Amino acid sequence: MRIEKLGLDEGECALVAPGSNFFYLTGMDFVGVHERLFLLLVTKNDKPAIVAPELYENELDKWKGELYLWQDGEDPFDVVKDLLKERRTKKLLVEESAPAGIILPFMDVYDIEPLSRRIKDIRERKDAEEIEKIKKACSIVDMVFEELLDTEFEGKKESDIAKRIDERIFELGGKPSFETIVASGANGAEPHHTISGKIIERGNFVVMDYGAKVDGYCSDITRTVAVGEKKDKEIYDTVQEAQQKAFESVRKGITAESIDRTAREVIAKKGYGENFTHRTGHGLGIDVHEDPYITAGNKEALDEGMVFTIEPGIYIKGSLGIRIEDDVAIIDGKGKRLTGAERNLLVV
Amino acid sequence: MRIEKLGLDEGECALVAPGSNFFYLTGMDFVGVHERLFLLLVTKNDKPAIVAPELYENELDKWKGELYLWQDGEDPFDVVKDLLKERRTKKLLVEESAPAGIILPFMDVYDIEPLSRRIKDIRERKDAEEIEKIKKACSIVDMVFEELLDTEFEGKKESDIAKRIDERIFELGGKPSFETIVASGANGAEPHHTISGKIIERGNFVVMDYGAKVDGYCSDITRTVAVGEKKDKEIYDTVQEAQQKAFESVRKGITAESIDRTAREVIAKKGYGENFTHRTGHGLGIDVHEDPYITAGNKEALDEGMVFTIEPGIYIKGSLGIRIEDDVAIIDGKGKRLTGAERNLLVV
Repeated sequence: MRIEKLGLDEGECALVAPGSNFFYLTGMDFVGVHERLFLLLVTKNDKPAIVAPELYENELDKWKGELYLWQDGEDPFDVVKDLLKERRTKKLLVEESAPAGIILPFMDVYDIEPLSRRIKDIRERKDAEEIEKIKKACSIVDMVFEELLDTEFEGKKESDIAKRIDERIFELGGKPSFETIVASGANGAEPHHTISGKIIERGNFVVMDYGAKVDGYCSDITRTVAVGEKKDKEIYDTVQEAQQKAFESVRKGITAESIDRTAREVIAKKGYGENFTHRTGHGLGIDVHEDPYITAGNKEALDEGMVFTIEPGIYIKGSLGIRIEDDVAIIDGKGKRLTGAERNLLVV
Repeated sequence: MRIEKLGLDEGECALVAPGSNFFYLTGMDFVGVHERLFLLLVTKNDKPAIVAPELYENELDKWKGELYLWQDGEDPFDVVKDLLKERRTKKLLVEESAPAGIILPFMDVYDIEPLSRRIKDIRERKDAEEIEKIKKACSIVDMVFEELLDTEFEGKKESDIAKRIDERIFELGGKPSFETIVASGANGAEPHHTISGKIIERGNFVVMDYGAKVDGYCSDITRTVAVGEKKDKEIYDTVQEAQQKAFESVRKGITAESIDRTAREVIAKKGYGENFTHRTGHGLGIDVHEDPYITAGNKEALDEGMVFTIEPGIYIKGSLGIRIEDDVAIIDGKGKRLTGAERNLLVV
């Protein structure tokens, strides 16, 4: 059981709120439940316990640990306080992403430490079953891209293309793992543009960044296509070379920052260093952004089973954006692309 | 400026993460940004300050307070620590919904208190402009319901109806304020059912619970329709009476729990007390669930400008669910429905 991998000491109690860690540890998905107190408590020598609103009784049918249900009108913190006392808690381990409200009542009572350091190490290293799920999510986004190539882009709105992408993700059995980005022309240079009603024009590059979530695991892909003609192909080729070189550098033991540096050097050498304005990638799994982050300053050595994106880009304000992103796993010590859609520049 | 309404004392610093409080205080919407440190710091005697990833420079163009941008690879907590020292902070006020990671570095340095108590009082009382925005969101969900009545329900999937609802919300200029629920027959009795591929049958009740978000403000409506024939009309009428009575009880000064009790008494008198398994309502505004909660134990006196739902329901496991929900505001001391779609039982 994954809960045992946490390796807690006596006196430690991990508090886990619904979300991706909760799903990882229990296999149950209560993502988005945060308004009413809902907590998993894990200690070394006891059965794991869930404190949850009574409302969720049915969904918790299969839970094999202890279960404490509370009703509207009761104070659920009373239950948690009693449990912590019974279990002789000295230190709480808390997710940095959990709502601060969970720990506010305990700050003066217990030592509090981030849980993330403990869970990061186990979640980062995907087992074979997890990698299969990510592959399934990747095969959906590959298929969506291939189908998109039959689409007329010129004259369509960005939002039309995004709608098409989302519909096909649903039809293929997934759901979008984040808000689909379709950014044409100058919109491609805006790092937080998602979609707009802008009409896609001949000569535009169109950045499409989207993902699928299946069985609780995510994929995340970006492809950039040229509309009607190949302009600025040398910029595209620079991004592609950076992505390829960074990918080729992946192997067990390499540091995250080294992959980032490799991508960055290719782009800087062509004079676009200032135009690659974000990190090279991020881990991928239950969350679409998770450890390990492929970024400057991250000296973490990558290990077997880690899955992450490699997604360099060049952005020229007022003009264009180009990004190419694949999902990569370390399998048998080597980098393996899990997304396989065409990376050479395509004209649509 | 809303920031001044917080009424902070010297030595206090409010830390506000992107989300609805941030939007309320600054007018800027960075909902969903939580992976990189992004914080608003408010103190009594200084300009409010934002610490944000450099990535967001463009979006922060219009910000008139202090701005500290940090780059990937830097430790943004260093900036926050310096700011807190400069501003002679003694106590941090933190949102209970903010990520715990924001306060973990400061637990041993400063007193920490929930911010929610301070901001709740001001956010609950909507000004005229906010109520106009909520009305706009309500007019969309009313229109969607009216149009739905022309739809053939029998033989369609729940997901088909949900898709139709979502599409019309988008076309009318909003976006869904939460995941649309379409629950037919026995699915209506499952409190967390959203949608499924289940085919809607003659004789089913269909619970449709959906909302629109426009200009940052939400609506939230539920209507239940009968497919093909009026069965169990007396159960429907009980819910409707509970909703009506609860609505009629609304006025400035009444407690939240009293409205809940009124709805509950109508339903209990007809013998369905056990089948009304949730609170009567919740506040509504920038968040689709916010204060005031219309629930047992909430002795808060409701005040001018408060906006909340009234949504009693009856759920019979394995058989049916019925819920009727309106959005209600206290205007000139009295309750006023902001949603106006037909509440009498309709056969589709």
